[in-house]
Amino acid sequence: MNDVALTTETQPVKELFIKMTVDAWNTQVTRLTKLFDALSDEQLATQTAPDRNTGIYLLGHLVAVTDGMLPLLGYAEKIHPELEKPFLTSPDRSGLEIPTVQELRKYWTAINAKLSEHIAATAPDEWFTKHNSVSAEDFAKEPHRNKLNILINRTNHNSYHLGQLIYLKPKQ
Amino acid sequence: MNDVALTTETQPVKELFIKMTVDAWNTQVTRLTKLFDALSDEQLATQTAPDRNTGIYLLGHLVAVTDGMLPLLGYAEKIHPELEKPFLTSPDRSGLEIPTVQELRKYWTAINAKLSEHIAATAPDEWFTKHNSVSAEDFAKEPHRNKLNILINRTNHNSYHLGQLIYLKPKQ
Repeated sequence: MNDVALTTETQPVKELFIKMTVDAWNTQVTRLTKLFDALSDEQLATQTAPDRNTGIYLLGHLVAVTDGMLPLLGYAEKIHPELEKPFLTSPDRSGLEIPTVQELRKYWTAINAKLSEHIAATAPDEWFTKHNSVSAEDFAKEPHRNKLNILINRTNHNSYHLGQLIYLKPKQ
Repeated sequence: MNDVALTTETQPVKELFIKMTVDAWNTQVTRLTKLFDALSDEQLATQTAPDRNTGIYLLGHLVAVTDGMLPLLGYAEKIHPELEKPFLTSPDRSGLEIPTVQELRKYWTAINAKLSEHIAATAPDEWFTKHNSVSAEDFAKEPHRNKLNILINRTNHNSYHLGQLIYLKPKQ
């Protein structure tokens, strides 16, 4: 009886917080997707500000970071590990071979659809388990380093680059 | 007995969410503060990209938005309501009178210190109550529109503009 009562009380709080966190993630992904859709290939090829990252680099960077969330959250292996070198460990204009902008656009859509499927299928309690780059020992002491926290941090990472990518849009 | 058990079980979960959310907020505020401290008044006076907002405008904008969180979260009246016109409802270079950059720097520090005090003094259950721009009726149907959600959204807003303000820093 007590166990049932505990579950009834705790689960709604967890589910509410998960909803708030997932909603915030979806909001930023939707904003980025709308912006990418509104920008031409030529606009994406330009720099967000003089001598700063191009739209293509930031698109590739965001695809690579989102892809990295699959193993980090224990969902799956990366779909595009080949993006790590040009978009995570190298700066823009590194001279490394990169996919075309059309390919990167498709990757963005596919990787976010894939991640969304996994997010929707994640049980509430699962969100509060450790992510895959924290040790069991550290997690025991720092229970906030859970999977949901990854989503919070990556949402802010998306917002950060959205603020830069918006500069590719001509001023109204 | 049952009540005690419920409280014991639910509070740690709530406190964990709150810690995750407040940590994310603090991380972005600290990043912004470090950046503002690293930028000279002259650098802040320049545009983040050609024909885009200046650093001063974004500093004033972020002060005004943070100030607006005081009434929204039910803590206090705005400290600087005079910033609303030039930094929330008007664009950059509106010709309106604005404080000096030195004054805005002080406001940034003061408003964040004030908000941090209120955040630290907020009881866990209080975070899950409605914020002040949602009606009681809507909140009953949408319990995620609580005070903690404001903090999540404003953290992303800070990240968004941090991505732009970083362009004021000379490239290494």
